[in-house]
Amino acid sequence: MNMDPQKYLRYLGLPSLFGTHRTKEIFNINPTAPSQREEATEIVITVYDYNADSMEERKFDKVQDCFHYKNNNRINWINIDGLRKADVELVSNQFNIHPLLIEDILSMHQRPKMDEVEGILFCLLNMLYFNEATRTVETEQISIALGKDFVISFQEDASRDVFDPVRNKLRFGNSKIRQRTADYLLYAMLDIIVDNYFQVMEKLGEQVELLEEEVIRRSNTKSLARINQLRKELIVLKRNIAPVRDLINGIIRSESDLLDDRTTKYFKDVYDHIIQAYDLSENYRDMMTSMQDLYINNVNLKLNEVMKVMAIVTCLLAPATVIGGIFGMNFDNIPSIHNKWGFFIAVGLMLLIPIWMLRAFRRRGWF
Amino acid sequence: MNMDPQKYLRYLGLPSLFGTHRTKEIFNINPTAPSQREEATEIVITVYDYNADSMEERKFDKVQDCFHYKNNNRINWINIDGLRKADVELVSNQFNIHPLLIEDILSMHQRPKMDEVEGILFCLLNMLYFNEATRTVETEQISIALGKDFVISFQEDASRDVFDPVRNKLRFGNSKIRQRTADYLLYAMLDIIVDNYFQVMEKLGEQVELLEEEVIRRSNTKSLARINQLRKELIVLKRNIAPVRDLINGIIRSESDLLDDRTTKYFKDVYDHIIQAYDLSENYRDMMTSMQDLYINNVNLKLNEVMKVMAIVTCLLAPATVIGGIFGMNFDNIPSIHNKWGFFIAVGLMLLIPIWMLRAFRRRGWF
Amino acid sequence: MNMDPQKYLRYLGLPSLFGTHRTKEIFNINPTAPSQREEATEIVITVYDYNADSMEERKFDKVQDCFHYKNNNRINWINIDGLRKADVELVSNQFNIHPLLIEDILSMHQRPKMDEVEGILFCLLNMLYFNEATRTVETEQISIALGKDFVISFQEDASRDVFDPVRNKLRFGNSKIRQRTADYLLYAMLDIIVDNYFQVMEKLGEQVELLEEEVIRRSNTKSLARINQLRKELIVLKRNIAPVRDLINGIIRSESDLLDDRTTKYFKDVYDHIIQAYDLSENYRDMMTSMQDLYINNVNLKLNEVMKVMAIVTCLLAPATVIGGIFGMNFDNIPSIHNKWGFFIAVGLMLLIPIWMLRAFRRRGWF
Amino acid sequence: MNMDPQKYLRYLGLPSLFGTHRTKEIFNINPTAPSQREEATEIVITVYDYNADSMEERKFDKVQDCFHYKNNNRINWINIDGLRKADVELVSNQFNIHPLLIEDILSMHQRPKMDEVEGILFCLLNMLYFNEATRTVETEQISIALGKDFVISFQEDASRDVFDPVRNKLRFGNSKIRQRTADYLLYAMLDIIVDNYFQVMEKLGEQVELLEEEVIRRSNTKSLARINQLRKELIVLKRNIAPVRDLINGIIRSESDLLDDRTTKYFKDVYDHIIQAYDLSENYRDMMTSMQDLYINNVNLKLNEVMKVMAIVTCLLAPATVIGGIFGMNFDNIPSIHNKWGFFIAVGLMLLIPIWMLRAFRRRGWF
Amino acid sequence: MNMDPQKYLRYLGLPSLFGTHRTKEIFNINPTAPSQREEATEIVITVYDYNADSMEERKFDKVQDCFHYKNNNRINWINIDGLRKADVELVSNQFNIHPLLIEDILSMHQRPKMDEVEGILFCLLNMLYFNEATRTVETEQISIALGKDFVISFQEDASRDVFDPVRNKLRFGNSKIRQRTADYLLYAMLDIIVDNYFQVMEKLGEQVELLEEEVIRRSNTKSLARINQLRKELIVLKRNIAPVRDLINGIIRSESDLLDDRTTKYFKDVYDHIIQAYDLSENYRDMMTSMQDLYINNVNLKLNEVMKVMAIVTCLLAPATVIGGIFGMNFDNIPSIHNKWGFFIAVGLMLLIPIWMLRAFRRRGWF
Ligand SMILES: [Mg+2]
Ligand SMILES: [Mg+2]
Ligand SMILES: [Mg+2]
Ligand SMILES: [Mg+2]
Ligand SMILES: [Mg+2]
Ligand SMILES: [Mg+2]
Ligand SMILES: [Mg+2]
Ligand SMILES: [Mg+2]
Ligand SMILES: [Mg+2]
Ligand SMILES: [Mg+2]
Ligand SMILES: [Mg+2]
Ligand SMILES: [Mg+2]
Ligand SMILES: [Mg+2]
Ligand SMILES: [Mg+2]
Ligand SMILES: [Mg+2]
Ligand SMILES: [Mg+2]
Ligand SMILES: [Mg+2]
Ligand SMILES: [Mg+2]
Ligand SMILES: [Mg+2]
Ligand SMILES: [Mg+2]
Ligand SMILES: [Mg+2]
Ligand SMILES: [Mg+2]
Ligand SMILES: [Mg+2]
Ligand SMILES: [Mg+2]
Ligand SMILES: [Mg+2]
Ligand SMILES: [Mg+2]
Ligand SMILES: [Mg+2]
Ligand SMILES: [Mg+2]
Ligand SMILES: [Mg+2]
Ligand SMILES: [Mg+2]
Ligand SMILES: [Mg+2]
Repeated sequence: MNMDPQKYLRYLGLPSLFGTHRTKEIFNINPTAPSQREEATEIVITVYDYNADSMEERKFDKVQDCFHYKNNNRINWINIDGLRKADVELVSNQFNIHPLLIEDILSMHQRPKMDEVEGILFCLLNMLYFNEATRTVETEQISIALGKDFVISFQEDASRDVFDPVRNKLRFGNSKIRQRTADYLLYAMLDIIVDNYFQVMEKLGEQVELLEEEVIRRSNTKSLARINQLRKELIVLKRNIAPVRDLINGIIRSESDLLDDRTTKYFKDVYDHIIQAYDLSENYRDMMTSMQDLYINNVNLKLNEVMKVMAIVTCLLAPATVIGGIFGMNFDNIPSIHNKWGFFIAVGLMLLIPIWMLRAFRRRGWF
Repeated sequence: MNMDPQKYLRYLGLPSLFGTHRTKEIFNINPTAPSQREEATEIVITVYDYNADSMEERKFDKVQDCFHYKNNNRINWINIDGLRKADVELVSNQFNIHPLLIEDILSMHQRPKMDEVEGILFCLLNMLYFNEATRTVETEQISIALGKDFVISFQEDASRDVFDPVRNKLRFGNSKIRQRTADYLLYAMLDIIVDNYFQVMEKLGEQVELLEEEVIRRSNTKSLARINQLRKELIVLKRNIAPVRDLINGIIRSESDLLDDRTTKYFKDVYDHIIQAYDLSENYRDMMTSMQDLYINNVNLKLNEVMKVMAIVTCLLAPATVIGGIFGMNFDNIPSIHNKWGFFIAVGLMLLIPIWMLRAFRRRGWF
Repeated sequence: MNMDPQKYLRYLGLPSLFGTHRTKEIFNINPTAPSQREEATEIVITVYDYNADSMEERKFDKVQDCFHYKNNNRINWINIDGLRKADVELVSNQFNIHPLLIEDILSMHQRPKMDEVEGILFCLLNMLYFNEATRTVETEQISIALGKDFVISFQEDASRDVFDPVRNKLRFGNSKIRQRTADYLLYAMLDIIVDNYFQVMEKLGEQVELLEEEVIRRSNTKSLARINQLRKELIVLKRNIAPVRDLINGIIRSESDLLDDRTTKYFKDVYDHIIQAYDLSENYRDMMTSMQDLYINNVNLKLNEVMKVMAIVTCLLAPATVIGGIFGMNFDNIPSIHNKWGFFIAVGLMLLIPIWMLRAFRRRGWF
Repeated sequence: MNMDPQKYLRYLGLPSLFGTHRTKEIFNINPTAPSQREEATEIVITVYDYNADSMEERKFDKVQDCFHYKNNNRINWINIDGLRKADVELVSNQFNIHPLLIEDILSMHQRPKMDEVEGILFCLLNMLYFNEATRTVETEQISIALGKDFVISFQEDASRDVFDPVRNKLRFGNSKIRQRTADYLLYAMLDIIVDNYFQVMEKLGEQVELLEEEVIRRSNTKSLARINQLRKELIVLKRNIAPVRDLINGIIRSESDLLDDRTTKYFKDVYDHIIQAYDLSENYRDMMTSMQDLYINNVNLKLNEVMKVMAIVTCLLAPATVIGGIFGMNFDNIPSIHNKWGFFIAVGLMLLIPIWMLRAFRRRGWF
Repeated sequence: MNMDPQKYLRYLGLPSLFGTHRTKEIFNINPTAPSQREEATEIVITVYDYNADSMEERKFDKVQDCFHYKNNNRINWINIDGLRKADVELVSNQFNIHPLLIEDILSMHQRPKMDEVEGILFCLLNMLYFNEATRTVETEQISIALGKDFVISFQEDASRDVFDPVRNKLRFGNSKIRQRTADYLLYAMLDIIVDNYFQVMEKLGEQVELLEEEVIRRSNTKSLARINQLRKELIVLKRNIAPVRDLINGIIRSESDLLDDRTTKYFKDVYDHIIQAYDLSENYRDMMTSMQDLYINNVNLKLNEVMKVMAIVTCLLAPATVIGGIFGMNFDNIPSIHNKWGFFIAVGLMLLIPIWMLRAFRRRGWF
C-alpha cells in the first residue's frame, strides 16, 4: 500500500533504483582535464601491413617496434589498445601527429570531432556498447589518424572493439579494402562504428518496449525510476551520435589529398546511416515523452478510481448514518419506534436508498 | 467502476489495447543488418519496353530474361517484385548499379534517400499503406534506379504497389509518359507514391477524428491507449515523409545528364505535394497534443465532479451526524428529550440545515 | 453539479460543442485528388481591359468571349469566378498556362505556392473569411496567373472575394495601377488578400479575448470545448499564412521579365505585412498556451477549494463523532452521565473544539 | 476559504485582475488599416540645423516652415511630434519620401522594419515605456527617414520621447555627432532607443522578481492573474525587440551611399545591445515558465497538505466510530458492558489507537 | 505535517530558500548604463614583456608606467586588475583602442562579443567561478584587446582570475607561448577561460546530482526551491557560454593581420571545447526538465498513497457505521437483539466485512 519512493529506496537500495550515480558519470565530465585519465597498465600494438598482394599481421608491446613501418610503401594500420601518455607522444611524434591532436587522444569525454592538421586527417569518436547487466550505454573513445599510407587508431580499452569484420576483410586478398588506399580503411572503420550504433539502439529499443509494458501494467515508483534512467541513457546516446554527423560530413566536404575521390560515395553511405541513427534517437525521445504522459495519465486514472470508490462508499453510508442517527436518539417520543415493522422499514431504507443511488451513479457513467 | 488499466488489459488482451508489439516494430530497427531480410520465395519481373510509337509489356520469373533490353534504344521500365540477394546482384551488375546501392536495395528500414553513383540516379523510399484492420501504417520499401533509357524498380512485396495509374498511362501511346525520356517515368512513379501518402493521411485523419469524439465522450483507459497508438503511427508517418523532401529536392537540384530540363517543373510539382504532406503531418502532431490536453482536462473535470459530490454529501451528512450524536448520548439530563416535539425538531434540523447548505453551494457556483 | 462532458454533449448536441466535424474538414484533406472538386454550376468572367488612358469593364458567361483580349496591347485582368474543368483548360490553353498549373488551379486544399512555368508567373493562395455564425475561418482558393500584359485569376466561389478596392482603383484613370504594368496589378491583388488576413485575425483576436474572459469566469466543459475549437482555427490560420511568406519572397527574388524593377518595393511592402501576420499568429498560439494553462490552474484551484471545504467539515465533525460515540455507548458505568451538566459539557465540547480548529486553520492560511 | 476566481473577480473587478482588456489591445491589431489612426490635434516640428561649427535649434507648428532647410549644405534633424496625414504627406513629398513609406509612417502597430526606397533609408520601430501605474509596456511608434544630409523623424506622441541625450550632444560643438554625417545622427537615435529597451526590461525584471516572491508566498488567484498579465507584457516586449535585430543588421549590411563606412562600427555596437536585449527577453520567458511550474507545484503541495490532514483525521476518528458503534448497539447481551472499567477501556482504546496511528504516520514520513 | 511554503519561508528565511534576490541579480541588468559600475579603489598593472629569449615580469600601480612598453619590439601582456574610467581611457588612448571599445570595457553585464575596430581585435567575455557557499555561478568580466605585439586585458576583480597556468608557461623560455606571436597569447588566455567553464559545470553537475537524490528522497518545498534555484544558475551559465561560440568562431573566420595562420588550429581547439560546453549545458537543461517531472510525479504518487489510505479506512469503517447504526436504533422490536449471540455476530460482521474488503483491494492491486 505504501508507494512512498523513500521507502522503496530504503528497501531496494537507492543507487540501483533511480541511478543517481549514473547522473554523476553523465554530467560531471570535463574534457579539458587530461590528468583524469589513468595510465593503461599495458598496451597492445597490432599492425596490419598490407597491399593488394600481401598482408602481414603483427602484435607488439612496445610502440617503437612499429616505427619502421613508416614509409615502407605499403599501407599500415597501427592499432594501439590502451592509452599511455608517453607512448601516445612517441608514436605521434614519429608519425607527425600534432600536439593538439595528442591532447585530444589523451582527453576523456571529448565531443566527437574531425580535424585536418598538418597532413593528418584526424577523427575522434566513441564506440558504443550496451551493458546488459546495468542496462546502460557504455562508451569507448577511439581516435583515428589518417596519414599518407597509414591509419593509426588509439583505443581506450584493450579488451574490446568493433573492428573484427574489418580485420576479416583485411585477411582476404580480393576484398575491396586491400585494393584501395588508406582512406578506404578509414571508411571501413567508421562504417562499422556507425553500424554498431544501431545495435546499441536496438538494445535500447527493447528497453523502451519493456518499459512501455511496465508503465501500462504498473505505473509505480519503479517504472518512474526506469523512465528517469532511460531518459539519461538517451542523453548519452544522442550526445555521442549527433556530432558524428558533422564528423562524416566534414570528411565528405574535405578537399584533403589523403582522400581518394572514389571513396566519397562510401563516406556518403556512412552519412546516410548516421543521419538515420540520429533520426531514430529523436524518435526514441518522442517515445519517452509519450511514456511520461502515459505514466502520469495512468497515475491520474488510478487516483480517479480510488476517489470514485471513496465517493461511492461515502454516499452509500449516508442513509445508514442519517437513519441510524435519527432513530438512535434518546427522545421519549419517537414516532413508529414502537411499531412492529419500524425497524425493518428503517433498515430497508438504509439498504434501498444506496441501491437506488448506485443505479443513478451507473447511469451517470461513473463506473 | 474499475478503470484500472491492468484489469482492462487482462480482460481485453494487452497487445491489442496499447499495442506494445507495435513499439517493437517501430523502434527495434537496424538498417545496417542486411541479413535480417528474408529471401523472397518467388519474384516477378515485369518489363515495359516503350517509345512514343509502341509499348511491349512482358512478365518473367528469371532476371536474366530482362538483360537483353539493355541498350535496345527504347525506354525500359523493369519492375522486380520480391527481393532475392542473388537476383538483385545479377540485375545490378548487368545494369551497372554500384554495390553500395545493392546494399541499400537489400537493406530493411532504410531512411528514404537519393544518390547519384556512377551514372545511376538512385531513389529509395517507402510506399505507405493503411491497414484498416490493425489501424496501422504499413510500409513497403521501393528502390528506383534511373539509368540511361531505363528505370529499374525493386519492391519488397509482390502482392501490391501503387503504380497502376502509371501502367495505365504507359499503355496510351499519346500519354506524356510515352513521349518523354526515362526521367519522366521516374517522375510519374514518385508522383504517385507521394499522392498516395495523402490517401494514407486521410485514413489517419479519420482515426484522429474518431479518437477526438471518443476522448470527448469517454476519456478512459481505452481512449488513452488509442492516443498512445496514434502517436506511434504518426512517428511512422513522419519519418517516412520528412526525408522524401530532401530526396525530391536532391533531384531538382541535381545536374545529372539523366534528367531532362523539361522534367524539372514536374519534380517541383511533386515537391509542392511532399512539402504539404509534411506540413499536414505537423498539423496532426499539434492535433494529438490538443487531444492529450483534452484527455487530461476531461479526467480532471471528472475527478472534480466526483470530489464535489463527495464534499456535498459529507456536508449534508454533517447535521445528522452531529444532532444524532448529541441526542444519542446516554446522559440522564438531556434537555427537550422528554419534549413531545423534540424528535421532530431534531429531525427537522437534520433536513433543513442540508437544504440551506445546498442552496449556499449553488450560489457559490459549485453545481 | 454534473460537469460530465458526456452529459453536456448529450443535451447541447455534441457537434456544436467540441466541433469534431471541423476536425474532419481540417485534417481529412487530400490536395492530390482533383476529382473531389464539384463542378461550378455557373461561372462569371469579368474582364478589366485597361491602359493609362482608358478602362473597359465587361462581364461574360462563356470563357471564349475573353480570348480576343489576348495580345491587344492593353493590360487585361480576366477574373473567372467558379471553377469548371473544361473552362479552366480552355482559358489556360489559350493563354499558355501549363497543364501542371491547370492541375493546381483545379486542386483543392493546395498549400499556397508560387511558380514560374514557361512564361507564366503563377500564385496560388487562399483568401480567408471569418464566418461569424460558426466562428470558423473559411478559405477560398484563388489562383493568379501573371503573363505578358495580362493577369488571370481563378476563384472558387463566385459570391465573394476581397478585390473591391482593386476594382475601384482600376476605375480611376490616375491611380497608380492604371499607370503601371500588369505586375503592379498582381501586387495590388496580393496586397489586398494579405491585408484581409489581418481582418480575419482581428476577428479571431476578439474570440481569443472573449474566450479568456470565459475561461477566467467559468473554466468548465464549455470553455474547454472553446479552447479546443480555437486551437483548430489557429491551425487553419497558420497553415494558410505561413507559406505565403515564401510565395511573396519568391516573387521578390524572382528574375522574371514579367516583373518590373519598380514594383519590387511594393512586393516588399506586402512582405512586411505577411511577416507581421505570421508573427501575430505565433502570438495567438502563445496566448492559447497561456489560456490552456489558465484553464488547468483554475480547475485545480476549484478542486483545492472543494477539498478544503471537505477537509474542514470532516475536522469539524470529528468532536461530535467522538464525543457522541463515547457517551452513546451502553456501558452501565459511564462517568458524569448522571451529572446534571454532563450533557451540556459534552455538547459544549462538540461546539468549542470545532471553533478552536477553525481558528487554527485560519491562522494556517487555509481560507 | 473561497478561492473561486469568479468571486474574486466579482469583488475586485474583473478587468483589473486578469487584464482581458489588455488582451484586446495586444491581439486585435491591424497594421494595414491606416484609417484607425486618429489625427493629432496639434503637431510640433523641431529642427536641429547643424554642422561642426554651429547649431541652430528651432520650433515650428507648420510643416512648411521647415522646407527651406532642404539642401542648405548643413545637416538637419527635423523631428515631427504628432501625426497628421496631410502634414506627413506634405513633408514627405518635399523630401522625396516614397508613398509606401508615408503609408508606413501613418500605420499603427506596424512591425519594426528598415527599408531603402529611392534615396531614403527608412527605419520604423517602437520606443518602449513602462507604465508604472498599469504595470504595462507602452509603445510609441517612431519612423526615421535618413536622406542626403537630413534625418526626419515622425513620432506619434508629442508629450514624450527618449531623445534628450541626443539633443544634449547636439548642443556641444565638439561632440562626435556634430563632426559627423547625418547617418551618425541616425545611429545616435537608434542607440538611445535600444538603450531604453533595457530600462523597460529592468522594470519588467522587477515585476518578475516581485511576482516570484508573490507566487512563493501565496499561489492564489491573484498571483495566477499576475503571471497571466506578465506573460502578455513579455509578448509585447518580444515582438517589439525581435524585429529590431533585422533592422539594425539591415543597416550594417546595406551598401547605401547614405551610410559612411566609419559609422558601421557604431551600428555594430547597437547590434550587440539589441542581440543582448533579445537574449534577455528569452531569459524572461524561461523565468516565466519556471514561475508557472512553481505556481502549479505550490498549489499541488497545498492540496497534498489538505488531503493529509483529512486522511489523518479520518483515520483518527475510525476507532471512535467503530468502538462507539459497537457499544452503542442495543443488544441485551453485550460483554463487559456491566464491567466497572468497560467504559474506560473503550474510551482508552479510542484515544490510544489514534496515538499509535499518528506515530505510525510520522514514521512513514507523512508529516 | 505542514508543508505550506509560506511557513517554511517564515521559519527558514525566505531569501535563502527560493533565492529571489538572485532573480534580481540575474534579471535586472542593463549593459548600457556605464554609470552603474563602481570605480575600483585600487588597480594593479602587471606587465609581461617577452620574446623567445627573455621575459620581464613587472607590477605597477599607475597606468602611465606601462606606456613605454608600446612598440618596444617585444611582445607585451599588460593585465589591468580593477576598472577605473580614467585609467581605462588613458591606456586605451595610448594603445589606440577605440572609444566604443572603452565603453564596452567599462560596461557591466555585457553579452560576450568579439570585434575588430581599427587595428584592434577585441574580445569581451566572462570568467566564471562557482561560489561553494551560495552555490551560485559568479561572473567576472574580462576584456582582451589584441594589437600589434601586445595584449591588454582588463579585469573587474583584482583578487582572482584563471590565468596562473598562462603565467607559468610565460616563465618557461621554451614554452610555445614564448616562441609565438601575440595572438598565441590571446589563444592561451581564451583556452584557459573556456577550460575553466568545465570546472564550473562540474560543480553544477554535482549540484544536479545532489538535487536529484534530494528530489527522489523528499520532493518537498525545499527540493522545489532548489530546482528553482538551479534553473536560474543554468540560465546564467548558458547566457555566458552560448555567445562565446560566436566569439571564437569570429576569430577563426577573421582575416585580421593580427592573427597568424599557424594559430588557427589552436583557436579551433578552443572552439571544440566551447561547443562541447554548450552541448553539456543543454544536457543540464534536459536533466532539469526530467527533475521537474520527477518532482511532480513524486508529489502525485504521495497524494495517491494518502488518498488510498483514506479510501481504505473509509471503506473499512463502513460496516461498523452501518451495523452500529442499525442496532443502535431505539426501536422496540429489533430482531435478534435479545439473542445471546447477536452482539457477537454483529461485531463479527463489523470485522469480517473489512477483512474481506481488504483482500478484494489487494487483489485489485491497490497496495
Ligand atoms: Mg567516456
Ligand atoms: Mg578497445
Ligand atoms: Mg554502414
Ligand atoms: Mg556497410
Ligand atoms: Mg547505404
Ligand atoms: Mg520501416
Ligand atoms: Mg518495411
Ligand atoms: Mg510491391
Ligand atoms: Mg502529385
Ligand atoms: Mg499528378
Ligand atoms: Mg490534477
Ligand atoms: Mg498533382
Ligand atoms: Mg501542382
Ligand atoms: Mg479549402
Ligand atoms: Mg470568390
Ligand atoms: Mg498591405
Ligand atoms: Mg496597402
Ligand atoms: Mg508598408
Ligand atoms: Mg503595438
Ligand atoms: Mg502603438
Ligand atoms: Mg514622442
Ligand atoms: Mg547602446
Ligand atoms: Mg551608447
Ligand atoms: Mg558596445
Ligand atoms: Mg552578469
Ligand atoms: Mg559581472
Ligand atoms: Mg580578476
Ligand atoms: Mg581548451
Ligand atoms: Mg588546452
Ligand atoms: Mg582538442
Ligand atoms: Mg495532479
